[in-house]
Parts: sequence; C-alpha cells; structure tokens
Amino acid sequence: MKFTFELIKKDSSARLGRAHTPHGSFNTPVFMPVGTKGSVKGMTPDELTGMGVEIILANTYHLYLRPGHRLVKELGGLHGFMSWSGPILTDSGGFQVFSLGKLRKITEEGVQFSSHLDGARCSLTPESAIEIQEALGADVIMPLDECTPYPADREYTVNSMNLTHRWARRCKDAKIPNGQALFGIVQGGMYTDLRRESAGALVDMDFDGYSIGGLSVGEEKELMQEMIAATVPLLPQDKPRYLMGVGTPEDLVYGVEMGVDMFDCVMPTRNARNGTLFTRFGKLVIKNAQYEKDPRPIDDGCGCYTCRNFSRAYLRHLYMAGEMLAPRLNTIHNLFYYTDLMARMRQAIGEGRFNEFKKDFYGQRLHTEDI
Amino acid sequence: MKFTFELIKKDSSARLGRAHTPHGSFNTPVFMPVGTKGSVKGMTPDELTGMGVEIILANTYHLYLRPGHRLVKELGGLHGFMSWSGPILTDSGGFQVFSLGKLRKITEEGVQFSSHLDGARCSLTPESAIEIQEALGADVIMPLDECTPYPADREYTVNSMNLTHRWARRCKDAKIPNGQALFGIVQGGMYTDLRRESAGALVDMDFDGYSIGGLSVGEEKELMQEMIAATVPLLPQDKPRYLMGVGTPEDLVYGVEMGVDMFDCVMPTRNARNGTLFTRFGKLVIKNAQYEKDPRPIDDGCGCYTCRNFSRAYLRHLYMAGEMLAPRLNTIHNLFYYTDLMARMRQAIGEGRFNEFKKDFYGQRLHTEDI
Repeated sequence: MKFTFELIKKDSSARLGRAHTPHGSFNTPVFMPVGTKGSVKGMTPDELTGMGVEIILANTYHLYLRPGHRLVKELGGLHGFMSWSGPILTDSGGFQVFSLGKLRKITEEGVQFSSHLDGARCSLTPESAIEIQEALGADVIMPLDECTPYPADREYTVNSMNLTHRWARRCKDAKIPNGQALFGIVQGGMYTDLRRESAGALVDMDFDGYSIGGLSVGEEKELMQEMIAATVPLLPQDKPRYLMGVGTPEDLVYGVEMGVDMFDCVMPTRNARNGTLFTRFGKLVIKNAQYEKDPRPIDDGCGCYTCRNFSRAYLRHLYMAGEMLAPRLNTIHNLFYYTDLMARMRQAIGEGRFNEFKKDFYGQRLHTEDI
Repeated sequence: MKFTFELIKKDSSARLGRAHTPHGSFNTPVFMPVGTKGSVKGMTPDELTGMGVEIILANTYHLYLRPGHRLVKELGGLHGFMSWSGPILTDSGGFQVFSLGKLRKITEEGVQFSSHLDGARCSLTPESAIEIQEALGADVIMPLDECTPYPADREYTVNSMNLTHRWARRCKDAKIPNGQALFGIVQGGMYTDLRRESAGALVDMDFDGYSIGGLSVGEEKELMQEMIAATVPLLPQDKPRYLMGVGTPEDLVYGVEMGVDMFDCVMPTRNARNGTLFTRFGKLVIKNAQYEKDPRPIDDGCGCYTCRNFSRAYLRHLYMAGEMLAPRLNTIHNLFYYTDLMARMRQAIGEGRFNEFKKDFYGQRLHTEDI
C-alpha cells in the first residue's frame, strides 16, 4: 500500500487532514511522541493507543547503534520488535550524528562519526540512511540531511543547504519502491530566501511530504516563526508538512495556524521525567513545596489517567521519593496533554473556528495563578 | 466493618480461604506485592487489579519518614493517597528500623534510630507504631516487634522474643477499636521450642491473625522450613497465617503446603528491575547474550501483557539501553508469575490435588534447558 494524504478541510491556513500508511491512518495535525530507542519512555503501546496516539517516531541513529537495524529487521521490523501496530516515522539519523556523535566529519559522500556509546567508528551516507530505514521498516522515512548549526553565516548555510539537496536526490534514487513514504527536508538556516530556495528545490524533486528541519536549534522564537512562515506557503497543498523537533504547546498552535501537519518533540516526555507538567494555564513544577499537601489533580480539566486518579501531593511524594511511578504518571499526563491539544485543534479546524480556539488557548495562559 | 477470615477448604495442611476487610475481600493463599513508599514500583493500581492482585503491602517505616503519616491521613489515608481501593497491609516499621535505620537503640520503651534519609533522630514505640498505622489506615496492621537477628544465641533470642511479646500486648492495648485487623508476630529465632512458646503466648493474647517473623534473614532454607513447620501447627485454624518477607516461588509452595495463607516479598519486583525473570522452568537473566536474537516471549506458557506482546530480544534491548520500559515490563511479568502461581495453588487446593500440583511444579523445574 502506498502512502497517501487527504486534505480534508482548511480554516485559513490551518489544515485538517488524514494520512494513510501501510500500518493504518493518522489524523493531522498530529503530534508524534518520540520513541528514541524503540520505546516511548515508560509507556506501553496499549497506553499510547488508549490516549489517542496514532503515530510515533523512532530514531534511526540510536537503533542503528543498538540493537542494530539488522536485528530489528530479523525480529519483524520496528513494528514487530516494539509491538506497535500503527504508523511509525523514523528520522535519518543525521540530526543525532550532529548532536550526539563525536569526531564527526562531513564529506560529499556522507558523515563519519564515533558512536556516543562506545566510540566505535561509524558512517552514514544518504544510501545507508535509506537502507537502515528500510530495514527498520517505518512508514515514513527521512533523507540524510545536514542540520545547519545555529548560528551559521550565509556561505556555510548555502553550502550546507546544497549538500542537503544533493543528499536528498541520492536518497530518492537509492530508495526501493515500497510502501514507505520519503519526505524531503527543507534547510536554509535562518535566511528566508534560502528557506524559499530549499523548499523550491525539494518540491521539484517531488517527495511524499516535506519536513522543515534545522529549527528549534537555539534561535529566538520570532526567528523560528519567520522561517516557518517563509517556508510553508511554498509547499504543495496536497502533501503533509512536518516541523521537525518542535516544540512547546505554543509552537504547536503557531505551526498549525501556519499550515503545518506533523510535529514531534521530546518535550512532553522529557519534561515529565523532570517533573514539569503541562496544564491549560501553563507549566507546573511538581517538586515545588506548594504542592506538598495539594489534593487537586495536575489539571482539573484534564481527563488523563493520572488526573483522574492522583493528587499533586501524591505525585510530588513519588517524585521526591524517586519512585518509578513518578515519571510514568507524569508522562501519561504530558502526552495526554499534547495529544488532546492536537485533537482540540483538529476539531476547531473542522468546525471552522481555529481563531476562536487560539484566542481561548492564549486567554487561559494569562491565568497562571490558577495552577 | 470488622476483619473476618473464612477457611473454605483444606487439602492436607494447605488451606483455601477468604478474608474480608473494610476495603473488600482477598482470597488466600495470597501473595502481596510490596508497595514500600505507597507505590508498587512502576505499577499503577489498575494494572495490579488487572493481573489479579487483591491486596498490597506498604511499609510504615518509609511512609512515616516520608511523606509522613499525618500527610497521608490528610489525603484520605493510604487508600486515597495512592488510589488503591482494595485491602492494604502495613508492617509496623520495626523490621526496617533494624535493617535501614542507623544508630538504633532498643529499650523497653521502644526503639530509637536515625532516619536513613537525613539522619533525623526518630523513635517508634508499640503505641506510636499503632498510631502511625491507624493514620495510614491499612486494613491489616502489625505490632512493633524485634526481628531477632541471625545468628543469635539462645539468651538473646529469649530476651528478644519476650520483648516482642510485651510490645505485642501494648500494641493490642493501644489500638483503637476500628475495622483494622491487628496480627501478632511470632518470633523465637532459630529455636523450635522458642517458636512454639512464642506462638502459644501470642495465641493467648487473641489476635486477628498471626505473622511468622524473623525468617528469611540469612539462614539455610532447611532451617527456615523447620521453623515454619514448628510454628504453623500451633496457630488457630480460624485465623490467617502470614509468613513475613518470604520468598522464592519454592518458598511459597512450601509455605502453602504447611498451611500459610499470606506472603509478601520484594523478590518479584526487585528481581524484575535487575532483569531476573521467573518462568515455569526457573529463572532467566534477560541481559544474557543468548537472548539477543531470541524471538520467544519470556515464558510461552505465560499470559501476562509482557509475554503476550514482547520478545526476549526486545526486553534485552530495553534492559541494555536502560529504558524505563524494561523494569516496567519485567515487573508486570514477575508479579503476574507470582499472582498466577498463587491462583493455581488455590485452584489445586479447591480441587483437592495440591500434591499433584506440587509434583508438577517441581517436575517443570528440572527442565532448565527449556528456558
């Protein structure tokens, strides 16, 4: 089965859609929880499905190093290995090579690096990145790209972008025709004209969807928004747009407003483990002494398992005592918050009232005293 | 509602029973998962209920130090605090004072110690141990006792046992008449005559049930079994017997055969976190290289969520990668194994074929090559 994308409805630039993959469909705009090493930290597949998660992301770099893509393939691909029957997206590994790998060296051929686990010398080329992702068997895969560092001058950014384009072409050529969708990744650093040039070059190559890479790398929020605004309008209406590694709830609302369809970020899961919880009114840091005797749930408007069953006082106790249940209950809440936020945005777009949704969303955030 | 115990059927000395508490009933023989700090490590109440757990244990010592029994009481007692609606048993805190507390000093009055968390000077007396457990609100509570160290000479053991008896009396006198059941704890070290004397003294005081303490403290298995065999026959048929802190699957089978009704142990949960998993054929250490590509579940005869969904290869990967899901899936399996073992023993007793069950149980354990 081939990957397809239906654009169901638009509300100004915000889009309601549905993507179909060999492992089922997902509704967009969507947030994809990150399952770095073949597991969304602390969560079972059943729990994810139960809270409405329809697609998850896994990291090629981590799985390539351990346990290895060949082992994963032998055990039924990522779907069989981790017992997740729905859609999966994998990145190309490039971003992690740049952020985690040591002694990396970029050439026209690809990138050489030392494993962050044991220092072993490894390499990724456009062709091997595709081969690895074919072995992992995700439904949506990414080409190898260079995530342009921030800050970078114009010359570096141009060269980096052009390398990403040549690698994108090689990835497209290397890919076996199968059910996997291959997206193109728009780079161009913090230069709006380069972002536009990159979008144009990739659209000309005709990918199954388009990713916006190289953002949320340390730049100001306004700059990120400027780059998103410059890029999205140049992407075709009939293909999904994926804003990589972004972001905060506010970023998701902004991205959806601009016409982005897919998001991923470690924020809800990582923050959960650190005890930072999302509410309608903003963030709550569970270890704070003010919650010691607080009998209320994290957010009394939330329908997650954690909020239906446990008080802030109990969650604070678990956190302070270092109990395993703390990161777990916190992750359940934060992922539910993100998943529910996307569901509410989809509903608002479907009903043509995204602007009203946005007003309410920001209105609630003025009431931090309600946390 | 008062605590009651029904003896439903006997098969030789093995007993099938049912206990009724203010928070519902539980079938015996039963294994109680340990929720030291108000949480069975990594497990939600729903998951425990789902696998057939009917009663859990929490540790008075830990909850007294953090978050404190007054806070727990304010938040609805342990049941409300941890959102567990079924029966709970708490120990008296004595055992942890002896094993974890520093600078402990035992007097007739009680025991003084320094908190293992921050060195704060604390004390427990028979009266305060009861008061704390009344605040925690468990359904079955324990009197303060001295867990006689091993080895201990006869003189020490006699004095220690007599102190435990005097404390037991004070606990009984201090207890408010409410729905909580108070058990007596049999001590007597490794002397069968002292064990018999202790059982007799406690039975004379008429408790709601009887615990066998001071075992599994480093002694040989044969010695432990000798003490159990010496004690149980002196306990009344119409009250439950609880073998504290024991043990391995073999210990549970032995205890049930001798007429024990209740067990608790950290073994299934702690071993799970260390990657040691229970199977019909014996133990499996998931990190071993032989499981690297093993597509089989932990035990193909097991019906737990982990075995129904995941391979040894995936569980090994999660363990090696330090993923949070590893201890969780392992805990689900081990607790299911223990819970299921008890259910199968209850069924065998009900059908008058406990001896046959025991033969099968030991027969399977000869086939370690099947792991």
